[in-house]
Amino acid sequence: MFSDVDFAHMERALALAVRGLYTTSPNPRVGCVLVNGGVVIGEGFTQPAGQDHAEIRALKDARARGHDPRGSTAYVTLEPCSHFGRTPPCANALIEAKVSRVIAAMEDPNPQVSGRGLQKLRAAGIEVRCGLLERESYELNIGFVSRMTRRRPWVRVKVAASLDGRTALPDGASQWITGEAARADGHTWRARACAILTGIGTVLGDDPQMTVRAVETPRQPLRILVDRNLDVPADARLLEGPPPLVFCARDDGEFAPRAAALRERGIEVVAVPNGEGKVDLTAMMLKLGERAINELHVEAGHKLHGSLLREGCVDELLMYVAPSLLGHAMPMFNLAAPASLDERTRLVFHSVDRIGDDLRIIARLAASVSQQDSPKV
Amino acid sequence: MFSDVDFAHMERALALAVRGLYTTSPNPRVGCVLVNGGVVIGEGFTQPAGQDHAEIRALKDARARGHDPRGSTAYVTLEPCSHFGRTPPCANALIEAKVSRVIAAMEDPNPQVSGRGLQKLRAAGIEVRCGLLERESYELNIGFVSRMTRRRPWVRVKVAASLDGRTALPDGASQWITGEAARADGHTWRARACAILTGIGTVLGDDPQMTVRAVETPRQPLRILVDRNLDVPADARLLEGPPPLVFCARDDGEFAPRAAALRERGIEVVAVPNGEGKVDLTAMMLKLGERAINELHVEAGHKLHGSLLREGCVDELLMYVAPSLLGHAMPMFNLAAPASLDERTRLVFHSVDRIGDDLRIIARLAASVSQQDSPKV
Repeated sequence: MFSDVDFAHMERALALAVRGLYTTSPNPRVGCVLVNGGVVIGEGFTQPAGQDHAEIRALKDARARGHDPRGSTAYVTLEPCSHFGRTPPCANALIEAKVSRVIAAMEDPNPQVSGRGLQKLRAAGIEVRCGLLERESYELNIGFVSRMTRRRPWVRVKVAASLDGRTALPDGASQWITGEAARADGHTWRARACAILTGIGTVLGDDPQMTVRAVETPRQPLRILVDRNLDVPADARLLEGPPPLVFCARDDGEFAPRAAALRERGIEVVAVPNGEGKVDLTAMMLKLGERAINELHVEAGHKLHGSLLREGCVDELLMYVAPSLLGHAMPMFNLAAPASLDERTRLVFHSVDRIGDDLRIIARLAASVSQQDSPKV
Repeated sequence: MFSDVDFAHMERALALAVRGLYTTSPNPRVGCVLVNGGVVIGEGFTQPAGQDHAEIRALKDARARGHDPRGSTAYVTLEPCSHFGRTPPCANALIEAKVSRVIAAMEDPNPQVSGRGLQKLRAAGIEVRCGLLERESYELNIGFVSRMTRRRPWVRVKVAASLDGRTALPDGASQWITGEAARADGHTWRARACAILTGIGTVLGDDPQMTVRAVETPRQPLRILVDRNLDVPADARLLEGPPPLVFCARDDGEFAPRAAALRERGIEVVAVPNGEGKVDLTAMMLKLGERAINELHVEAGHKLHGSLLREGCVDELLMYVAPSLLGHAMPMFNLAAPASLDERTRLVFHSVDRIGDDLRIIARLAASVSQQDSPKV
């Protein structure tokens, strides 16, 4: 159905999309290539929110290079949008430019679009095909797909552990179980996320900044703290710089002054109690969906990680496994053993790579994989 | 230094050597290809102990096919032996056959040989080169190298665990954490070992046969039981079939009748006390070396695995990792946490593969890797 030439152009469009990895949120990462008579006449990728989408960039690029896009083929990694958001619909722009063919990697999961952009193009007499390198485009926008289809972010939990599954010594020492390459790799995952979440245990224990440092990024993700009793110390490094978002279980009564002190510093405090004095993690995820968080990167301790797992709030484990054994040290997750093997938490291995001397294993919760209805190819 | 043609012939010799994987012990797995004028004139691999080595088989094969090996090149995966063992030295046979060139993958680690075979060939005017695909030959004979250089087997511990490093539920249920493909793969590793070792905890808990079943093998490895107090039940399945070897801490006093009952059944019982009422695992390994055990495959519980690790008796972990989480279930190894991260047990990742839905991770103890002086290529 698709030719080698189609594959090559879509691969180029995907490579362009990747350039927006750290900047397009909350919009999806999209790339577009315009080809006429076998020649690439224009290229583009989605700019930061409110600015041009990939198709508009490619059309402008073609014109700037003295080409008329009329009669060309547009390779685009996501179905062109058909609705007026912060920018006018890209489908209209392609129709006005009189392109003759549009090849899309995947349909837009946005219920405001999903198929309507392609329909609009077809109705205008444009030849339309969809599904070329769908899996690659899906992976690039897994968080956007999650927010559009499940109203919550794709939640990626990062863990560094020894081969016997231990994350720290009994005294808490964990710096550094994995090597420098793994830590730098971890920052690329932080950078692509819309937000980085941690827990009060990690703040009290390690006082992290939770910023992207090992890779260059024009934008720091929002930092989020789960701190049920608002125990975060006033001098915590997490509170420095752009204000983080704090989720607690109560901001009234004895906790009111703590909440007020944070709010005075411009820090937003949101109470989402679960009825047991803890933060309702599921409710929190929906709130993050409302705030247009596509990918949420979690780096916390075994307690919060365990709670997130228990409450079905984890989609993916980003695990760095070090070539070492730690014996009776801290477990990876504070999670009760199942009553029987049938009830174990099921995962699907997504990828395994060597990063320096360590392994990086990406495993997805089987439930998330089936929920999200990911492409089969 | 070596041509593409050399590589191709040595690869063929290695493929032949692999055919002896389940049969040559305690001899190394060796393959030999004789090439004359670019044509393969004879091939062979080492036969079961007491029968022909690879070089002799290849010479006989050439003659049976009507070829004179005179002037040919012998590609052999291990330095030809120079001493009289159960068979006459292969170096002599190659000299008598008047081959003109010998290319060996690696020197024989046997102190009775190591270099002397190659020397003898050179002294006879044969052109000799060594080191082609050395790493591959080394891997095939890692147990033989261990026994020759350290007087003990290469000890491979097999573990099946969840991604969070758990091997069984708190009630001991562990059948099956990993999938069928992983279990079958585990049997190929059993089959290539000279012996399979387990502990009394596993016998009492699971009553395993500890035989090779999922793959065809002409020879079952020796089965070994570590059972300090000779608690093995008379009807244990491990005691059925060819008699296993039992290591205990005491076979006198109150334990004498137990030892006698086993010996009456033809089962050898060996006491190697460590002074604390347990089996001296290091002494046991040396005894297994004396018995010509090259590769020892261990499948036991977290206690014996932990003891073996603690006493420096493990060289390699053969780990099957299932895509699941088990939470607070059985740990992988009963091993105290180190006082600091600097004192952790260091490993080196050797290989990672997908086996069905599971991962197979082979990691080696860093100490074993440096001890064994493995090839750098």
